[in-house]
This record gives sequence, C-alpha cells and structure tokens, in this order.
Amino acid sequence: MSGSFDLDPRLAGDTFVVGDLPLCRVLLMRDARYAWLVLVPRRAGLVEVADLSVDQRALLWREVDTAADALRATAPCDKLNIGALGNIVRQLHVHVVARVEGDAAWPGPVWGFGKAEAYSDEAAEHRIVAVRQRLAGLGGSQPAGEGSSPQG
Amino acid sequence: MSGSFDLDPRLAGDTFVVGDLPLCRVLLMRDARYAWLVLVPRRAGLVEVADLSVDQRALLWREVDTAADALRATAPCDKLNIGALGNIVRQLHVHVVARVEGDAAWPGPVWGFGKAEAYSDEAAEHRIVAVRQRLAGLGGSQPAGEGSSPQG
Repeated sequence: MSGSFDLDPRLAGDTFVVGDLPLCRVLLMRDARYAWLVLVPRRAGLVEVADLSVDQRALLWREVDTAADALRATAPCDKLNIGALGNIVRQLHVHVVARVEGDAAWPGPVWGFGKAEAYSDEAAEHRIVAVRQRLAGLGGSQPAGEGSSPQG
Repeated sequence: MSGSFDLDPRLAGDTFVVGDLPLCRVLLMRDARYAWLVLVPRRAGLVEVADLSVDQRALLWREVDTAADALRATAPCDKLNIGALGNIVRQLHVHVVARVEGDAAWPGPVWGFGKAEAYSDEAAEHRIVAVRQRLAGLGGSQPAGEGSSPQG
C-alpha cells in the first residue's frame, strides 16, 4: 500500500468506513435512501481507472463484484447500479448501489438526486456490520483501522 | 456467440452500431451532446454483471477500458464516466462517456438529463469511423454487420 494514500475529504465526510479489501477501502454512503457502497483504491494520485495497472484494474472490478455480492446479500436489491464518475470528487472511486423499484431516485441515477437522508446510528451500524461480515466471509475485508463506527 | 442475442429495441433505437469487440457490441449513443459509447455483451438473458462468468466479467471490463481509450483518443475528455445502471433497459449494458467540463449535464450524470441532441449524418459518421478505427488499432473491433451507418 502506498503510504501517501489519503481519502478525499468530501468522500470521507459523506461516508462511513466499512473496511479494506486488498486494493480498495470500502465505504458506506451516509444516505439511508439506498444501500450504497463506494470503493476507493488505496493508491495516491488516481483519477481514471486507466491510472491503475492492468492487474490492479482487474482487481478493482473483482472487488466491485465482491461489494455487489455483499450488498445483494444484506439489502433489498432489484437492480445493481455501478458507476465511476468523479466529475466532482476526482479521486478514483466506484459506486455500487442496490436499487429498489420505487426508491427515491428510481429509475433515474442516484448521483446528485435530492438530499441524503441520515441513518440512525443503529441502522448504520447494522448495515456496516452486515456488509463487513459478508465481505469477510468472501475472504476480503480487513478493518480499515479508522473511523469505522457511525459515530467516528 | 449465442445465436439468441438480440439487442434491446430501446438500445437499438437510441444508438448507432460501431462494431463488435470479442464480447460486446459497441454502440454510439444518438446524442451529440456527449461522446458516449454503450457496450452490450452479446449473450442472451444478461441483466447484472454477475450474470457473466468470471472470465467474461474480466473481458467486459477490459473492453470497457478499450472503449474508454478509443473515446479519449477521438473526442475531448476531461473525465470519463463509466456506468452500468439498467434501471430502465434491463439488458446488461455499460456506458462509457467522455465528459467535458461545462457539457450539458456537467457535473451531474448524463443519464436522464434533458433531451438528446441529434447528430448530423456527417458528424455521426465521423465519430463512428474514428472510434471504429481506434478500436481496430487496439486489436478489437469487427464490423457488426448491421445498421452501422447513421442512416441505417
């Protein structure tokens, strides 16, 4: 891991930390309207997927698969949405969102739609623990060692 | 290739055919506001990325990389947007969009934003040919053998 990886402060402020996969930090968006994970490769200076090596790109997409599996196992999901946009926050990150028919933005995209709805501490902790356990069961997640509590 | 692959009629109506990569049909969105490709794996019955085998998933994302490279080589691009949503059209497809600061939807997502702006025949043909040549140069594209002309 690069010692100079720092999570973009907007991403940090908008999310809870779930844990680390081999390449990515896994974050839960602080928006109770959707079960919404964000994966951030723990390398400094990345903007586009193409900034990763070919092997790292393959690992990134495998970790996206893993995150998608964890969401589907722990939250209602009629359709997964996967997106790498980065128009506002340039640090490379990939969204994985479990969409439910009739959810707040359905059938439009979640990005930029309305206002985030806060989780209760209990609901956030429940979702974080459920996703973390599923990721660990898939052989992936390690504690990120920082700010993983919804109070953190 | 599966003989039973049929392109969703909404995707077909919204796009020009650029060509075929080993897994995906490459389409150009009929929206001159953005340089916007759509990749559709030529397999029947796919909805989620997870419906592909592990090897096919890896190939899908390599083809997304290839399409992204072709866009960046042939169109202005300040930021790539990659998205697999499928909330409306369920047939598995991945969007690859070259975003330019200040474009119609900037910095929001392109999906569901405003009305598509028609290409002139000349502008569509120019973009299709440029992307196709770049894909061929990357070792990928074959003619899809149908509807690849903007008049088609």
